[in-house]
Amino acid sequence: MATQTATPANMLHSIDAATGEPFGEPFAQHGAADVDAACAAATAAFDDYRSRPLEDRAAFLDRIADEIMAIGDPLIEAAMRESGLPRARLEGERGRTTGQLKLFAQVVRDGNFLGLRVDSALPDRQPLPRPDLRLRKVPLGPVAVFGASNFPLAFSTAGGDTASALAAGCPVVVKGHGAHPRTGSLVAEAIARAVAACNMPAGVFNHLLGPGNQVGSALVQDPRIAAVGFTGSRSGGMALVKLAQARAVPIPVYAEMSSINPVLLMPHALATRGAALGTAFVGSLTMGSGQFCTNPGLLLAIEGEGLDAFLDAARAALADAQASTMLTAGIHAAYTKGVEDLSSHPHVETIGRGAVGQGKTCGQAGLFATTAEAFLADEALGHEIFGASSLLVRCRDEAELVRVLRAAEGQLTATIQMDGGDTDMAGRLLPVLELKAGRVLVNGWPTGVEVAHAMVHGGPFPSTSDGRTTSVGSLAIDRYLRPVSYQNLPAELLPAELRDDATLPRMLDGKAG
Amino acid sequence: MATQTATPANMLHSIDAATGEPFGEPFAQHGAADVDAACAAATAAFDDYRSRPLEDRAAFLDRIADEIMAIGDPLIEAAMRESGLPRARLEGERGRTTGQLKLFAQVVRDGNFLGLRVDSALPDRQPLPRPDLRLRKVPLGPVAVFGASNFPLAFSTAGGDTASALAAGCPVVVKGHGAHPRTGSLVAEAIARAVAACNMPAGVFNHLLGPGNQVGSALVQDPRIAAVGFTGSRSGGMALVKLAQARAVPIPVYAEMSSINPVLLMPHALATRGAALGTAFVGSLTMGSGQFCTNPGLLLAIEGEGLDAFLDAARAALADAQASTMLTAGIHAAYTKGVEDLSSHPHVETIGRGAVGQGKTCGQAGLFATTAEAFLADEALGHEIFGASSLLVRCRDEAELVRVLRAAEGQLTATIQMDGGDTDMAGRLLPVLELKAGRVLVNGWPTGVEVAHAMVHGGPFPSTSDGRTTSVGSLAIDRYLRPVSYQNLPAELLPAELRDDATLPRMLDGKAG
Repeated sequence: MATQTATPANMLHSIDAATGEPFGEPFAQHGAADVDAACAAATAAFDDYRSRPLEDRAAFLDRIADEIMAIGDPLIEAAMRESGLPRARLEGERGRTTGQLKLFAQVVRDGNFLGLRVDSALPDRQPLPRPDLRLRKVPLGPVAVFGASNFPLAFSTAGGDTASALAAGCPVVVKGHGAHPRTGSLVAEAIARAVAACNMPAGVFNHLLGPGNQVGSALVQDPRIAAVGFTGSRSGGMALVKLAQARAVPIPVYAEMSSINPVLLMPHALATRGAALGTAFVGSLTMGSGQFCTNPGLLLAIEGEGLDAFLDAARAALADAQASTMLTAGIHAAYTKGVEDLSSHPHVETIGRGAVGQGKTCGQAGLFATTAEAFLADEALGHEIFGASSLLVRCRDEAELVRVLRAAEGQLTATIQMDGGDTDMAGRLLPVLELKAGRVLVNGWPTGVEVAHAMVHGGPFPSTSDGRTTSVGSLAIDRYLRPVSYQNLPAELLPAELRDDATLPRMLDGKAG
Repeated sequence: MATQTATPANMLHSIDAATGEPFGEPFAQHGAADVDAACAAATAAFDDYRSRPLEDRAAFLDRIADEIMAIGDPLIEAAMRESGLPRARLEGERGRTTGQLKLFAQVVRDGNFLGLRVDSALPDRQPLPRPDLRLRKVPLGPVAVFGASNFPLAFSTAGGDTASALAAGCPVVVKGHGAHPRTGSLVAEAIARAVAACNMPAGVFNHLLGPGNQVGSALVQDPRIAAVGFTGSRSGGMALVKLAQARAVPIPVYAEMSSINPVLLMPHALATRGAALGTAFVGSLTMGSGQFCTNPGLLLAIEGEGLDAFLDAARAALADAQASTMLTAGIHAAYTKGVEDLSSHPHVETIGRGAVGQGKTCGQAGLFATTAEAFLADEALGHEIFGASSLLVRCRDEAELVRVLRAAEGQLTATIQMDGGDTDMAGRLLPVLELKAGRVLVNGWPTGVEVAHAMVHGGPFPSTSDGRTTSVGSLAIDRYLRPVSYQNLPAELLPAELRDDATLPRMLDGKAG
């Protein structure tokens, strides 16, 4: 980790999410000079880091995971207090964070991510010989990572973007989230120990704390930064996208921003198990105070048998739902305002509300309903309300449901709740859903994103700023790579993985292997 | 092909590149209503086209190639007259065009481009079961293709972007280049015959002719267009990028724009074969009047033995170089102006010039030289002059050469001319070059871009607007795809290629196969 000097005049305090009160020693905030130093350190580390043997890079990722575990309970306690999230959730999230680092270590060892291709020379080809061509993917360069408030471990300092960028061979500069500086700093220190233990160049990881509109903006505008990973609000993500596009050399921004994750309640499923679906739905809606990118904020149903049973069961489950602390006072205020606007909309009825909590930042869950006509007439009804709020859209028939789906913006997920009798309709809807979302689920709930090879946590705009990638799962490494072709290089100049005696998987003359 | 009605008041004439005179029947130009109709047709065709069996899609690509060949000599004659390029070059380019369609047909048959991944369900996993996850890449949607003037066949109507977009499953709307409307229309008619013969939906291919600032802009702004492929000038490419970013839903633009393709003349190579290199260099420089994206517009050499021999031989070869017709009067005028500006620069010396041609749009080749100091002090010296002009930068030592390289903008290619004694220096330069360019060559010339699996014709900004992709070679299909994950879909709803009994290559539980 690069050394940064902070200005003590401007300290950042950990805030107890439940009380809103500061606690513990404050953290020095960084400024423009620190951004410059971090970018310089990352750049200085780049060529060294990317040229280390893949096994060393993999061992480094494994070691980061081990160092995070070695922090022990102080990490969980800091995260609990800063985020208001419960212990079990954060212990699970820690497991996800270390698991994802270890997954990327394996991805690095496997070498498929390099996309190696060799086209053999054809010296006798007429009218011109074919040269020897060899392709590999190389890392883009230093990556700026902006963590999310809602996953203080798995989408933050050592979260998915950091893990995939490091796996790709990119140094990382993290702009730590202001809502969990203690959690982030503990993780940053663990990474620094891994850097030292693995003898990696110091600038391979850098941690900055400070205001987004200063430190964050300066980071994205720094010419040494080659790509940006971000998880957060639509306004925040789009601000970074615009900064990145306005640079002399524009760079890719992978911003995961806004999604309401439509759930389609199919007629047969509603008729046969409407009540059970209503109860299960509220479980997904209220988990973690609804503070998930994949929270089911939109329900689509065709009026008919079982819909009332669904709504009755959901209403009852909501009444039993404990209100829980939200991540920050700002998120709580935005949620409360969003729900107030929604419930006072002339064409929206309130189906049910959760309990009012004791704490001042407890979020009160809510389920609302409207008609397809009203939804189609007011695009504000399709905007995300971050938290445990969902809107059911009553459709008269399949055609109207398809119109609502097509009108909806791009999504991270789309879910079909169906029974056997719904198969034909589901088959007709699938082509619409797969063009609208990054992940299509049947008979599950969108919350809960498996870290896997076949996962896509991404989707068309505005769910992300770049629907060609994922932020979760091993495919995320592709974000931070670009292909380079080497023509007629003598063996001694070829990158090791492209030499004839290399053993990593590669496509040879068009045949995958 | 969708039917468009054009406004006959505003006709587009083929211009004979050599004489500047119009010839043949003029073409109706399209307008806003035609853009709308083409986008509607492409959208209507999308779901049908993308769901056809891969073999049908491959056969369609093969058929387009066959139909292009079946046009016969009228295609070559039209292209010769409209572009001023000679017969042999255009016959070769036709072979490249059909070869690339057939390569993509094979890519479609192989199925690797789908990026199939399956993670098996783990129903007994604790604390939570793992769902069944299956991933494939799906096409983005209708693609707008803007052809280039300098490859009226291979980078135009049925060129690389059209071939890769169709291979990916995307309908195409081509904005035909105004410099070769007859060539483009003949190819568009051939594609229409292939559409009919293969029983493809009519809107899978659409051809528009009209002014870029009207038809082209409207096309990129149309909400049904999902991506853009462009080859042309930096100003043209950046205009499309800005339009695409300003949309309510921004879309990717793959613009290949500007590159001066540095060639590094290493000391030992210069000392042992400076004169031979000078002669060979001029061959690459003047080929096709230098109208290649990969034209070697920048030479870097360390002052020393053999550099004078290189320059003397280049001067002599230039004096022998025939001036040839440039593609359009506009390109000729821009080239002439660029060379005048360069040659009148206070720190630039003229090494040699080619013959002055007879025709009024003949380009006069030129080799110029400057110092590293002057190059570093004036970024205008690093701008592309499209045509047979090149600037040699004299460097005092390796460190200065590296400074010049680092200061240069992103490039499509970077070339090292070296002998055995240069290996150490080349090894030190390689990490700089591979971050600066999409393709690194040793002892070749950058002109001549092989259509292959391991080719990258792309590179960091501003050589392209998106250095993560290539516009030539089979990897180009990735541009028009995005991943979708399917979670717990019943077999009858799964896309055929993701079912258990599918035979296409896929990664199963992390193991590539």
